[in-house]
Amino acid sequence: MTKARRKFWGWGLESETLSEADAGRIARRVGSLTGLGPGPYTAPPDIDELALPAPRVTPPGSLAGLCRSDAYSRASHTYGKSYPDYVRAWARDFAPAPDVVAWPESEADVAALLDWAADAGVAAIPYGAGSSVVGGVEPQVGAGYAGTLTVDLGRLDRVLEIDRASRAARIQGGVLGPAMEAQLKPAGLTMRHFPQSFAFSTLGGWIATRSGGHYATLYTHIDEFVESLRTVTPAGTIESRRLPGSGAGPSPDRLMIGSEGSLGIITEAWMRLQDRPTHRASAALRFADFAAAAAALRAVGQAGLYPTNLRLVDSEEARLADAGDGSFHLAVLAFESADHPVDAWMSRALECMADHGADFERDAATRARDPLADAWREAFIRAPYDREGLIAHGLLHDTFETAITWDRFEEFHAGVKEATEAAIVEATGRPGHVTCRFTHVYPDGPAPYFTYLAQPAPGAEVEQWRAIKSAASDALIRAGGTITHHHAVGRDHMPWYEAQRPALFGAALAAAKRALDPAAILNPGVLLPPRAAAAEAAQPS
Amino acid sequence: MTKARRKFWGWGLESETLSEADAGRIARRVGSLTGLGPGPYTAPPDIDELALPAPRVTPPGSLAGLCRSDAYSRASHTYGKSYPDYVRAWARDFAPAPDVVAWPESEADVAALLDWAADAGVAAIPYGAGSSVVGGVEPQVGAGYAGTLTVDLGRLDRVLEIDRASRAARIQGGVLGPAMEAQLKPAGLTMRHFPQSFAFSTLGGWIATRSGGHYATLYTHIDEFVESLRTVTPAGTIESRRLPGSGAGPSPDRLMIGSEGSLGIITEAWMRLQDRPTHRASAALRFADFAAAAAALRAVGQAGLYPTNLRLVDSEEARLADAGDGSFHLAVLAFESADHPVDAWMSRALECMADHGADFERDAATRARDPLADAWREAFIRAPYDREGLIAHGLLHDTFETAITWDRFEEFHAGVKEATEAAIVEATGRPGHVTCRFTHVYPDGPAPYFTYLAQPAPGAEVEQWRAIKSAASDALIRAGGTITHHHAVGRDHMPWYEAQRPALFGAALAAAKRALDPAAILNPGVLLPPRAAAAEAAQPS
Repeated sequence: MTKARRKFWGWGLESETLSEADAGRIARRVGSLTGLGPGPYTAPPDIDELALPAPRVTPPGSLAGLCRSDAYSRASHTYGKSYPDYVRAWARDFAPAPDVVAWPESEADVAALLDWAADAGVAAIPYGAGSSVVGGVEPQVGAGYAGTLTVDLGRLDRVLEIDRASRAARIQGGVLGPAMEAQLKPAGLTMRHFPQSFAFSTLGGWIATRSGGHYATLYTHIDEFVESLRTVTPAGTIESRRLPGSGAGPSPDRLMIGSEGSLGIITEAWMRLQDRPTHRASAALRFADFAAAAAALRAVGQAGLYPTNLRLVDSEEARLADAGDGSFHLAVLAFESADHPVDAWMSRALECMADHGADFERDAATRARDPLADAWREAFIRAPYDREGLIAHGLLHDTFETAITWDRFEEFHAGVKEATEAAIVEATGRPGHVTCRFTHVYPDGPAPYFTYLAQPAPGAEVEQWRAIKSAASDALIRAGGTITHHHAVGRDHMPWYEAQRPALFGAALAAAKRALDPAAILNPGVLLPPRAAAAEAAQPS
Repeated sequence: MTKARRKFWGWGLESETLSEADAGRIARRVGSLTGLGPGPYTAPPDIDELALPAPRVTPPGSLAGLCRSDAYSRASHTYGKSYPDYVRAWARDFAPAPDVVAWPESEADVAALLDWAADAGVAAIPYGAGSSVVGGVEPQVGAGYAGTLTVDLGRLDRVLEIDRASRAARIQGGVLGPAMEAQLKPAGLTMRHFPQSFAFSTLGGWIATRSGGHYATLYTHIDEFVESLRTVTPAGTIESRRLPGSGAGPSPDRLMIGSEGSLGIITEAWMRLQDRPTHRASAALRFADFAAAAAALRAVGQAGLYPTNLRLVDSEEARLADAGDGSFHLAVLAFESADHPVDAWMSRALECMADHGADFERDAATRARDPLADAWREAFIRAPYDREGLIAHGLLHDTFETAITWDRFEEFHAGVKEATEAAIVEATGRPGHVTCRFTHVYPDGPAPYFTYLAQPAPGAEVEQWRAIKSAASDALIRAGGTITHHHAVGRDHMPWYEAQRPALFGAALAAAKRALDPAAILNPGVLLPPRAAAAEAAQPS
C-alpha cells in the first residue's frame, strides 16, 4: 500500500486511519457527552478479508488499458461515505462492488466507455471521489443490466485554461478540490467553494450533485459558479456556450446541474472564480435562545450584506464540537473581500445580531479571527475523520439536511427534531442525541442541518438506521422541506425525492433522459428508476 | 373606446398616442442628431381600417363566455412591440391575427382552454401583455393547426398571499407590474424588478421570458426571484415546492423559466421580495474613453459591492438621450438599501471608477440623485412611447442585446457594431446610427445592448430590417455572444437560438415538450419547431 492511497472503506487516506487508541478516545468522549454506550472496538476491514463476487463482464481489448478489476479497485468504488456504507464495510460486505472500474484519460475515453456500456447493457456509474453520503455511487442497479462499470474521472484533473480578465477557468471534471485550487493559485484566483468534502471530492461531482460550499449566503451552491459545461452522454457531447448571463430559453446547464450522473458525465466546465481575499472579519456570537438566534440570522440574511459565513450551531452541537459548554447557541459570522475593508459590513451585521440578543466580544467588529469560531471550524473539518472512531465502537452517527422558508421554520425544526428523537427510541430502544445547525441562510429561509447519534443493536445497524432515516425524511417532507439542500438524492433519498418532485417534471426529466441515454445505462436508479427487466439488458441499438 | 384601453398597434394606452405635432418633433430631432431624413407623417391605424380574415374556429359553448373574436380583441393580440410589428400595423396588415382571444378567470379555465385546443388541433399562444419584441406572441404557427387561440392571462392579476417573515408572496401570472407593486406596498414589500416594459408586462411573462430588470448586478434576471411555480400544461398542472434553496435533482423551476409558453402556462408563482429601500446613492460618471469606461465597470462588477445600478451609455447614445453633448461616455452608478446607509459601498465604487479615469462631481458619494443620471433614466422610460413618432415618419428604430465575457468584449463590441453599420448601408443604401450601452454587468462580463436607427425605403421596411437583423445576429453569434440576454427568443431569434443551443439539449427539450404538450399546441415555433403537416392537426388523443 502506498502512503497516498485512499481507504477503500471510508473517508481519507489509508495513512490517516485512526489508531485503536484514538478511536476509543473519540467514542468514549462522545459517549460521556451524550449518555450513549460505545461497544467493543472492531478494526476496519483489510482488503484480504473480502470475498468479492467474480466480475460478470470484461471490457473489450481497446479499453482494457483503462480498466481494472482487482479487489482494491473494486472495493474502493463500492460505497460512498454514508453511515450504512461504513457499517457494511465494517461487516466486510462488499457485495455491490462494480465489476469493472475504468479511469478514462480523455473525453474520447469517456465516450468509448459509454459506447461499450450501452452496447453491452452494462450500467455505468460516474464516480468523482466517492464522497456521496446518499448512495449516489453505489452500483446497486437491479436485474436489468449485464454488469456494472464505475467510471472514475480522477485522471481528468487539470485546469486547462485561465481567463484572468473574466476571472474564469476551464477545468476538468475529475480534479479534487485541493489540486484545483493549487492550479488556480498562481493566477491569484480561487473558487472559494469549500464543501465539507473538499479534500476528497471533485468539481464534476460538485456540479452533478449541486454541492453546497463555503459561502453561507449568496453563492451557496456550485450552480452559481458554472459559466458553461461539457457533458458526454451516450447520445453524444453537449457543450454550452460560455456566457456571463443569457435569456435564450431554459438554461441548458441547469438541466445538467444536479443530474447526478443520470444524464451524462461532466468532463469540463468553465467556472467563475474570485480574487483571493485579503480583508477578513470573523466573529462568534452567543445566544441564550434558539428562536432569537434564528431571528438574528434572518435579519442579517435579509439585510443585503451577503456575509461569507453565517451559521448557527445549537448549544448541544456546539458542546460536542468543543465550542462552548452547552449553555449557549453559537453563531458564526464572517466577511471577506479581495477589494475593500469589511468593517462597515461587519458593524452593521453585529448591530442586527445585537438587536436579537446576541452576546459577543466588544472588539468583534475588528477581529480577523475568533477562537470560538475557529474551534467550531476545526471540529467541522475533523468530523469526517473522527466518524470512524464512533463506528468502530458500534455507535450510529448520521446527518441530514434540508431547507425551509422562515414562516414555517420554528414548527418545522421542532417537528423534525421530535420525529427523529422518537424514531431513535422506537428503532434502538433508547434515546439518542439530535442537534441542529444552519449551514446556509437565504433571505427567505435557512438550510437546517441535523446530526444524530444513537446506539443501535449490533448486527441490526443498517435496519435500525433505515427506520430512523425513513421517519426523519417522512417528517421533513410532510412539513414542507426539501429532502436535500446539498447532499443530493442518490439512491437513499429516492422515495422522498419522488414525493417532492412534481410528477410531470419527473415525466419531462424521464423523457430528456431517453433522448440522452436511450439505453438507460447511466447511474440507474438515481433520480429515475433503473430499467427493470433482465430482458431489456440485451443490446438496445 | 374607453380611456384606459391599450393601443392595438403599439406601446401604451390609446390616450397616450402621440399627436402628429409631437411625432414630428421627435422625428425631426432624431433626424437632426443623426443625419437621417424623416419621411412624411402617416397616422397610426384605426380599427375600422382593418380587414381581418374570418375566424377559422369557434370555442365550445362552455368556454364562449371567456372568449372574444371581435376586431379589437384580435388586432390587439396580433403583434408584440417590435419594429416589424409596428411597420405591419402601420401598413394596416393584421393578417396573423388570432382566431379567438380568451381571458381565463381561473386556473381551471386555463386547463379547459388547453383541453379544447389540444382536442381541436388549435395552437394556443400564451399572452401576458404583449410587450414581446421578438415575435413571441404572434400567432404565426404554420399550416399544422386548425386555428389559433391567444390566451390572455390579464384577469389572473392578484397577489394571493403574503409571507412577511420570508419576504415572499404568491402572485398570479397575469398581473401587470404596477398592479403587482400596488398590492405588495401595504406590506412594505417590493419586487424591485423593473424591466423597461414594466408598465405593460406581466409576472408570468417575465418568468416565461427570463426578463431582465432593475438590478444591473446580482439579481438581474427574474430567475433569481422565483421561489416556486405553478404551471398548467396540456398534460396537467406542475407545482414545485416552495423552498429557499434545494439540491434535489435538476431544478424543476429552471425548466419552466425561459420556456416562453412552449411547455405550459405559468398561473402562479411564489416570488422572493425585498423591503422597500430607504437609503440611496446615485452618481453619473463621465469617461473620455469607452474601453477605460468598460474597464471601470468591470472593476466595480468584480469588487463584490453589488450596486443596484451599474450601466454604461456610449457618448452617442447619451447625446440622443439628452444626457450629454456627445463628448463623453456616461456611466450610471447607484446603490440602495432598506437596511443601512450605502456610503461605504458608494465610496469604494467611486474609487474603482476614478482608478480608470472617471470624471464625476466631488460630492457624488453623498448624492441621493444625480441630474445627468435622471436625464438618462427619463429618456429610458420615454423610449417606448417616443418610438411611434419615428415609425410614423418612416424611420427604422430597433435594439438588440447580448452578453459576452470580458476577455472577448472589445473585439466583440467593435465587430458587432461594424457588422451592423455595414448591414445598414448594404440594406438601405445609406449610413445609419448604431450605439451601445451596458444594461447589466456581471463579474465575468457585460450585457451590451445595441440601438440602431436607419432610413429604410418606404414599402421595404420589413425586408430591409430583416437583412440588418440577420447580419447583426450572425455577427454576435459568430463572435461568441448569446442571441438574447433578456429579450427572449420568440420567433425572430429562432435560427440563432438553434445555432447557439447545444443540439442534444434541443433534443432533450423537445422530448420534455412531448411529455408535457403531446399535441404540440403551445406557442408553436417558439423554442421548438411547430408541427408541420396539416394532417397532424387532426385530434391527437
